[in-house]
Amino acid sequence: MTNNIILLGHGSGGKLSHQLLDDVIIPRLSGLPQREQNDAAVLSHGGRRLAFTTDSYVVDPIFFPGGDIGDLAVNGTVNDLAMSGARPLYLTVGLILEEGLPVADLERVLDSMKAAAAAAGVAIVAGDTKVVPRGKADKIFINTAGIGVFDHDLEILGSGARVGDQILVNGTIGDHGMAVLAGREGLDLHSDIQSDTAPLHELVADLIAGVGRDLHVLRDPTRGGVATTLKEIALQSNVDLTLEEPALPVGEAVRGACAILGLDPLYVANEGKLLALLAPEAAGRALDIMHRHPQGRHAAIIGEVTGASAGKVYLRTAIGGLRAIEMLAGEQLPRIC
Amino acid sequence: MTNNIILLGHGSGGKLSHQLLDDVIIPRLSGLPQREQNDAAVLSHGGRRLAFTTDSYVVDPIFFPGGDIGDLAVNGTVNDLAMSGARPLYLTVGLILEEGLPVADLERVLDSMKAAAAAAGVAIVAGDTKVVPRGKADKIFINTAGIGVFDHDLEILGSGARVGDQILVNGTIGDHGMAVLAGREGLDLHSDIQSDTAPLHELVADLIAGVGRDLHVLRDPTRGGVATTLKEIALQSNVDLTLEEPALPVGEAVRGACAILGLDPLYVANEGKLLALLAPEAAGRALDIMHRHPQGRHAAIIGEVTGASAGKVYLRTAIGGLRAIEMLAGEQLPRIC
Repeated sequence: MTNNIILLGHGSGGKLSHQLLDDVIIPRLSGLPQREQNDAAVLSHGGRRLAFTTDSYVVDPIFFPGGDIGDLAVNGTVNDLAMSGARPLYLTVGLILEEGLPVADLERVLDSMKAAAAAAGVAIVAGDTKVVPRGKADKIFINTAGIGVFDHDLEILGSGARVGDQILVNGTIGDHGMAVLAGREGLDLHSDIQSDTAPLHELVADLIAGVGRDLHVLRDPTRGGVATTLKEIALQSNVDLTLEEPALPVGEAVRGACAILGLDPLYVANEGKLLALLAPEAAGRALDIMHRHPQGRHAAIIGEVTGASAGKVYLRTAIGGLRAIEMLAGEQLPRIC
Repeated sequence: MTNNIILLGHGSGGKLSHQLLDDVIIPRLSGLPQREQNDAAVLSHGGRRLAFTTDSYVVDPIFFPGGDIGDLAVNGTVNDLAMSGARPLYLTVGLILEEGLPVADLERVLDSMKAAAAAAGVAIVAGDTKVVPRGKADKIFINTAGIGVFDHDLEILGSGARVGDQILVNGTIGDHGMAVLAGREGLDLHSDIQSDTAPLHELVADLIAGVGRDLHVLRDPTRGGVATTLKEIALQSNVDLTLEEPALPVGEAVRGACAILGLDPLYVANEGKLLALLAPEAAGRALDIMHRHPQGRHAAIIGEVTGASAGKVYLRTAIGGLRAIEMLAGEQLPRIC
């Protein structure tokens, strides 16, 4: 690796994260090349498939407009399971607490986890709590690991995109990242941007029931945003993607806040959004399904797979220009999840 | 809860940890009373049982005599699965890195995880990496979650102890805690105490094969040590236990270091030890099995279940006195795992 110390950008989900994974982590822990990695591992047990995944949450602040680190930690792992096509069932919770954390804050976070688990229909079955001295962590970090099961035999993988596939997103992008930013001390965006944190497994189940094998790829565009996630899919599937800029759903407040801060909503994290790549003949049906679901009311077709090639992502702008999209470089918003 | 902020003792594994679990965490996340909790959850999937568990590791220092945070994180979760009687199969790894961590240190930790996973025969199947700014974490925290399967139909639970059961430990106690302490900056114990971090699932498999249903309880005495773990078992099983002090295996160096520092090895953490409670007729056989195993060469019978009552633990001292043993109060060694 070109750096000899860990930088904030190594946690961005973008280029530096990929470099850390490729050069340091994957050779030691996985053996599975990054282009074959998905949001959850799919294992075989007793002739049936299981999905297994983990995520740690270090978001700052721990309470932000529209959510907190608790429901984020539940929904995030529920969604990683859902993106493999699994039905989420069981979670574990690992808490790392900083000495001095108000117990009332912990209770509020746990109440939020409880409500999110109930809403998503998952059971929290095991846990662990560690405490570190003041100044050795920041309030609370949460790890959730999850197990899901499959009610079908579809294989939904990042490598599944085919030429002609339509790219759908289930609603406005950039809300979570901008809500967290708005919640940070000292920043007052004078807006009512809310995090989109939400469980997506029911929307996924509806899509699978409705379009079946025409559903090729599912991925939730969290860290690194829609741009980075689509770039990953393009590389995994060996295809080129083209996004239509005017089709991208972006809320007015997010658009305005991004403009003020010089941020591109394509790179801002989402926590209740999914990208679905589908056979063109199923795209209209999938869009209808999304529109009928509470998590998909603002769904849109935002682009398509335009070629079988080297993993390029293009954005066709409102005035017809074609701009190449790369992964997030550096780290624009540390500790966004 | 009587405290309104989180104290270091809430992570001790002892009394304050139990209070935090009882008053704050379990009512929100679990619903399963603490006396029914075990090191891993046992789930049913497709008619077969699965064990699922999680642990976060925040040990300080991250490198210590006999191990590091990497092999500790692998072995710890392997052991939590093994204590339920499961065969560990899959792990996830969640890394929280502090900005500025030398990449060489991360590589060393990951190399250690890789070696430990290979030695334990488990596959690391999913992971996540977060980075927080300098001063918001301490070098590296690791969460491991694990899945195990059952090759038998035994139910090995903390509530399984019966009057007459013999209590076995597979070797010397207190090594891990004292090794970590010896590794801390500024402390020079002039000793060669090594952490006992090791996977115990093969020893467990040998015990199950050798004594079957006569094996009633397995538990690894990590945070809080042998004393706290036995107190938990006594409470879960509604029995009284009596330990024989002269029978407790304690290494000379650990004994000496504990004496100097005013620590009781009964409360010092272990990371390669298990407590097994067995029917008396199987105890000799179990001891032979342990003695033949690399992780059990210094195994000993250290006490027995002496009554069906209110969850008391007694220590019979070398001169014949009987002392009541309670859970660890406060926190004697923060960040021991």
